[in-house]
Amino acid sequence: MKTKSSARRIFAENLRKARLAKKLSQEDLAELSSLHRTYVGSVERAERNVSIDNMERLSAAVGVSLPELLKEGKR
Amino acid sequence: MKTKSSARRIFAENLRKARLAKKLSQEDLAELSSLHRTYVGSVERAERNVSIDNMERLSAAVGVSLPELLKEGKR
Repeated sequence: MKTKSSARRIFAENLRKARLAKKLSQEDLAELSSLHRTYVGSVERAERNVSIDNMERLSAAVGVSLPELLKEGKR
Repeated sequence: MKTKSSARRIFAENLRKARLAKKLSQEDLAELSSLHRTYVGSVERAERNVSIDNMERLSAAVGVSLPELLKEGKR
């Protein structure tokens, strides 16, 4: 069993918190970032090896900078 | 023509600066991060939609945190 990378987990948690802080559903976030709802869900579960372009879209959609979304224990 | 994402460009520039600050060649960095030398080169040219797992490996290899590598105009 491979453990999920720590960057994945941090991004997943921060993204979820940022989304909830904006009172967005996963579906809202998917629409705002032009990604699929199930994809957004899997990113939030740290299941996806998300790419930098998609991270940037998600960051713009929740209004939190990418460095901020990658900081441990923030938000 | 699609412009390269700004996150890609920022990461590419910061990675290159961090690598040079450690006096590493692209080949050294490739070896340290267990990635291919041509892949590292293309990431530094912002040509690749690099994934979070590989970003984390590159970050560990240059000894600069991932949030730091994504900050605009840093290092």
